[in-house]
Amino acid sequence: MPEHAAASRLCFSGLCFLLQILLILLFAVLVRYSPEGSPEPCPPQLNCSHRSQDPNFLQPRFQDVHVQLLLSFGLLVAFLSRYGPGSAAIIILITVFSIQWAVLMQGMLFFFLSGKISVGAQSMVSADFCTAAVLISTGAVLGRVSPVQMLLLALLEVTLGTLHEFILLRLLGVSDSGGSLTVHTFGAYFGLMVSRVLYQPHKDKRKREEQQDKGHHKDVFAVVGTIYLWIFWPSFTSTTAAHHDGENWAVLNSYFSLVASTVSTFILSPVLHEESTPRMVQLQDATLAAVAVMGMAGEMLLTPFGALIAGFLVGLITPLGFRFFTPVLHSKLKIQDTCGVHNTHGLPGVLGALLGTLLTLLATADTFGYRLELLFPLVTQGSRTVTDQALIQLSALLLTLLFATLGGCITGTILKINVPRCCADTQYKESPGLQEVKLGTVGKKGFLGLRQRQGLGIFLQLPPLAAAFR
Amino acid sequence: MPEHAAASRLCFSGLCFLLQILLILLFAVLVRYSPEGSPEPCPPQLNCSHRSQDPNFLQPRFQDVHVQLLLSFGLLVAFLSRYGPGSAAIIILITVFSIQWAVLMQGMLFFFLSGKISVGAQSMVSADFCTAAVLISTGAVLGRVSPVQMLLLALLEVTLGTLHEFILLRLLGVSDSGGSLTVHTFGAYFGLMVSRVLYQPHKDKRKREEQQDKGHHKDVFAVVGTIYLWIFWPSFTSTTAAHHDGENWAVLNSYFSLVASTVSTFILSPVLHEESTPRMVQLQDATLAAVAVMGMAGEMLLTPFGALIAGFLVGLITPLGFRFFTPVLHSKLKIQDTCGVHNTHGLPGVLGALLGTLLTLLATADTFGYRLELLFPLVTQGSRTVTDQALIQLSALLLTLLFATLGGCITGTILKINVPRCCADTQYKESPGLQEVKLGTVGKKGFLGLRQRQGLGIFLQLPPLAAAFR
Amino acid sequence: MPEHAAASRLCFSGLCFLLQILLILLFAVLVRYSPEGSPEPCPPQLNCSHRSQDPNFLQPRFQDVHVQLLLSFGLLVAFLSRYGPGSAAIIILITVFSIQWAVLMQGMLFFFLSGKISVGAQSMVSADFCTAAVLISTGAVLGRVSPVQMLLLALLEVTLGTLHEFILLRLLGVSDSGGSLTVHTFGAYFGLMVSRVLYQPHKDKRKREEQQDKGHHKDVFAVVGTIYLWIFWPSFTSTTAAHHDGENWAVLNSYFSLVASTVSTFILSPVLHEESTPRMVQLQDATLAAVAVMGMAGEMLLTPFGALIAGFLVGLITPLGFRFFTPVLHSKLKIQDTCGVHNTHGLPGVLGALLGTLLTLLATADTFGYRLELLFPLVTQGSRTVTDQALIQLSALLLTLLFATLGGCITGTILKINVPRCCADTQYKESPGLQEVKLGTVGKKGFLGLRQRQGLGIFLQLPPLAAAFR
Repeated sequence: MPEHAAASRLCFSGLCFLLQILLILLFAVLVRYSPEGSPEPCPPQLNCSHRSQDPNFLQPRFQDVHVQLLLSFGLLVAFLSRYGPGSAAIIILITVFSIQWAVLMQGMLFFFLSGKISVGAQSMVSADFCTAAVLISTGAVLGRVSPVQMLLLALLEVTLGTLHEFILLRLLGVSDSGGSLTVHTFGAYFGLMVSRVLYQPHKDKRKREEQQDKGHHKDVFAVVGTIYLWIFWPSFTSTTAAHHDGENWAVLNSYFSLVASTVSTFILSPVLHEESTPRMVQLQDATLAAVAVMGMAGEMLLTPFGALIAGFLVGLITPLGFRFFTPVLHSKLKIQDTCGVHNTHGLPGVLGALLGTLLTLLATADTFGYRLELLFPLVTQGSRTVTDQALIQLSALLLTLLFATLGGCITGTILKINVPRCCADTQYKESPGLQEVKLGTVGKKGFLGLRQRQGLGIFLQLPPLAAAFR
Repeated sequence: MPEHAAASRLCFSGLCFLLQILLILLFAVLVRYSPEGSPEPCPPQLNCSHRSQDPNFLQPRFQDVHVQLLLSFGLLVAFLSRYGPGSAAIIILITVFSIQWAVLMQGMLFFFLSGKISVGAQSMVSADFCTAAVLISTGAVLGRVSPVQMLLLALLEVTLGTLHEFILLRLLGVSDSGGSLTVHTFGAYFGLMVSRVLYQPHKDKRKREEQQDKGHHKDVFAVVGTIYLWIFWPSFTSTTAAHHDGENWAVLNSYFSLVASTVSTFILSPVLHEESTPRMVQLQDATLAAVAVMGMAGEMLLTPFGALIAGFLVGLITPLGFRFFTPVLHSKLKIQDTCGVHNTHGLPGVLGALLGTLLTLLATADTFGYRLELLFPLVTQGSRTVTDQALIQLSALLLTLLFATLGGCITGTILKINVPRCCADTQYKESPGLQEVKLGTVGKKGFLGLRQRQGLGIFLQLPPLAAAFR
Repeated sequence: MPEHAAASRLCFSGLCFLLQILLILLFAVLVRYSPEGSPEPCPPQLNCSHRSQDPNFLQPRFQDVHVQLLLSFGLLVAFLSRYGPGSAAIIILITVFSIQWAVLMQGMLFFFLSGKISVGAQSMVSADFCTAAVLISTGAVLGRVSPVQMLLLALLEVTLGTLHEFILLRLLGVSDSGGSLTVHTFGAYFGLMVSRVLYQPHKDKRKREEQQDKGHHKDVFAVVGTIYLWIFWPSFTSTTAAHHDGENWAVLNSYFSLVASTVSTFILSPVLHEESTPRMVQLQDATLAAVAVMGMAGEMLLTPFGALIAGFLVGLITPLGFRFFTPVLHSKLKIQDTCGVHNTHGLPGVLGALLGTLLTLLATADTFGYRLELLFPLVTQGSRTVTDQALIQLSALLLTLLFATLGGCITGTILKINVPRCCADTQYKESPGLQEVKLGTVGKKGFLGLRQRQGLGIFLQLPPLAAAFR
């Protein structure tokens, strides 16, 4: 049995090696730095002096690293609070492969110039958005899939997600700069469908009990995660907003939405749970939901109170979803949702898209002014009416749900076929999920259980942090 | 009794709900985005092309979210190290209400245009400064007031603080860009007076014993808090500095002050305490004090060694205050100061104001050059001499102390009246303070106490992180 | 004995006091703010309107504080994960003295104008780079030297490092904007030589055993440290890159290198250790190494796949070094390397310099374009051929190794002489290393050991965080 485990470990190691070599070869053949970073001095037709003063141009250059990495790791930290540090390493692995693969995939569709992919700060930000969707999906299945399955899920989702993004943004001309549809809705429903296909009734009951317990152990991560999200989500939502004026609104709207949804948590928590103040994990969920709802509407909202109302309502819906909808999802629809991504990303994303559709319908040249051209260039060019645009935004929501559901089904089925192969043994022995189970058990038994450590070889496999907290 | 607690919880939840609805209504009626983010293209008279290249204009736009949120949460993290994560949720609640209320209050006085409040990055930064003062006051009374009282304190202090800021900055023309007076001094003495009025001798003795014990448990938060403060305090001090050149100085001066005050802690710690290296909490206090002293003087100091000396001295005064003045404050003046805000904000703020007055007195067109106009426009316009300006800066200090003391008295009295009402029961059952008591007790009993957990239902009410650390 | 300890404490406190007073006097005599922050309006010959739009000029102004402090504290957090919070305070002390001394030393050589040192954002960033080298050296000897020795090491290394930097960058015209040579290689080999001279065989064996154990307790810091490094290392590498276009490449190259070296860790970890996923500390090491290798080559690499390959290879070398080279280093060469700086900074720095030499050799006006002038001004001016420049880059590597080795020897010898003096007693009583020993012991004994706490006065000396984690 130990031999088998060793073989499985080496198999996984070899898989990573082959994948990385393949990626390096593809980069060598296909990818070059974009002209904006090229050795040639700025060609006159690019009007560089104008561009370099344009905050819209400068801003991604300066913020790319921050937003890009923190987005991924903000999510990482967010999941840590629910699922413990055992999952940290595997999520970092998913992140680094997803970013590389997304640079290639998105490059093929969005940044392909004369046989080469042009890479720059802009393409890194795009790759980052794509990785965010993958991490959201990961949140739905965490602890029930092996690292190999996780990796396969990431590669498939990046491919499908990029295609989906290309159809929405380029072909249909949908306005979704903050990713309500392309990141939150797509990521959440994709992950939920994968979870549905991989449903295993027996493992399930035990899981949920421990989940109740876990929350208490992870609040230190939730504090850090909430702070990270408050700092970086507004920047994230507004990174690709049409213009630096638009961006300003997207930041402020995201911020007001955050504020209001935090208050909602304080209102509902004493009603739903028998606690006077909400746990930090609940505040973190409210934070995530508040920005998901601003993804599409953030740059369209003309008044602060609109953002306050949207944040307030979504802040009420998220805890209600956790209380009443997640159990239904689980018992009736047989969908396990480890980190509750349906409540924090799926539902808020859908609501954000509906809000965006409504705002599109109300958009007039009077109220939007020059911003109308930036948000809906096809409307000002006269090739569409505002109503057409609103219908397209709405149909984009339906398309996203369809794409995510189908894509999740296909991916789940492929993962299921993949299970008994090569590294199958890692699924139960080495997945972060099982380590978590042990941690959960420790939590329930209390410190009496810990004294049995010397006798229980099993505890030696515990993730390091669990030991640190004992 | 459980029924009563439930009623009290629901009452608090309902209060939050009503407040938030009221705030949304006020926002709907009064608040609009400011012209800089408006749909109209930039009107010619605003000279936008100039403004958008002005770093002073760009900087608040890009940094608003960072500074604004981190300031609040930097403080949050700072308090966590003294008072544990039980207080985190309630401080977040205070923060979100204070920001909303400050946007409204400050908007009425500072950004009121043709019947509407104009909101932009600038007003968010102002609201943030105001919230900082509230959080400082909170630090003085943390653990002795109920959430409802906390909320009332926040709303009253925002109102009075905004009025105070308006009188100082607009009516008197005081130069205080980093908030030595408006944030640190006002916040600290306001909180101390509230603490004085709410003085309860019996609860007190027990408290202080535990406080001794607590410090040892929270150093992990102090490490994180100190790092946050080092990163973001210099930006905070310089956000509203007059000019981007001035700002540069404010950043550098704050930084040199930080460096020197850290050394001071290493000098005094072995003398005052029997420890060779200072605890992280002491380094954090030095960090807070070093920037409070640079609030007013940061943009006035012409040489780095001035900042080094100021930081060095304030770094000596803070630990001396903790050792010799806090006990006097407590036993003689009957003022309990939970987080020691008098030493870290009050005293350094006063010293900073005195230093600013001195520098104003020394200001000449020769040494300050064009900067003189930015710092003291009324002096260069000839309507005041430098001596007048210095006298006004000094009288602003006295006015601040008066305003803070009176305001704190009034607020404390109102809170006292409020105690027996509605959610009174939450005071002892659910305030973070009492949870802290239990945590403290655990700390002293050691792990033997923890084994009794199953038998003690009381521990189920412990804040989640306390459990995580056990 | 307690009296002796008290005397030693006061002696250290007095030393800090004298040093700080001396520094303040030197600052008072020598240091002024640079003209860019001077009271005069911008003189016409400086062409300010151009400069203020130049991102290369703006960027250090805005990012100085962030990069500067986080760099130091990023390293701090990085070491925390290996050596616990007992070392945090002493590292902060080293940081604040190093920064002040580096501002003076570097100012004498780089920013000396008409009898005064000009200080601005630029000089703060330079001082920060120098402090980074000191912190790397600190990592090699942490736990085996007293605070006084640590301080002496910092002052000597800043002096020698500044001289080394001046010879390389000014006299030889070496291109090393990200500090592969001046920060990583110099810092690592300097520290290793000091460690060699201070070698104590008896203390040694015990240490290493505990080190094995420690890793498990500190993963929470490793998670935070890794995130910090991912966020801020790319900015650090690119801060002083020649141009904002070059900077863009340096950021992107660093980022691709980070990604690839993370994958390498996942590939090697299952092969070298019997664990399926790498520990967070290993991921952190990969992160450090990946950016050390990009220090010189970051702005020279023309394609993303070059960065991927470099990162991939260095990511493989680092864990191999920990597994096979560190024991040899220790047993054969008698060099103890507490935090493994040879694998994470020394070797990657050398490899980065070799890669930079190779790229210099390949540099042609065709492939580099206008960038050639920014990277190698002497080549475009015709005073050197590309081959000359490559030879100089290579000889700079040898010079760095020589300088670091000799400097480390001298410093180590001075520290050894210094041991029996003044504060010698602090070495075993109060150094963070010994506290760490106790923490390690606790870890191994498990919770049974903790119950003996009341009986063991020794535990009262444990660093606060250790208590928090129990």
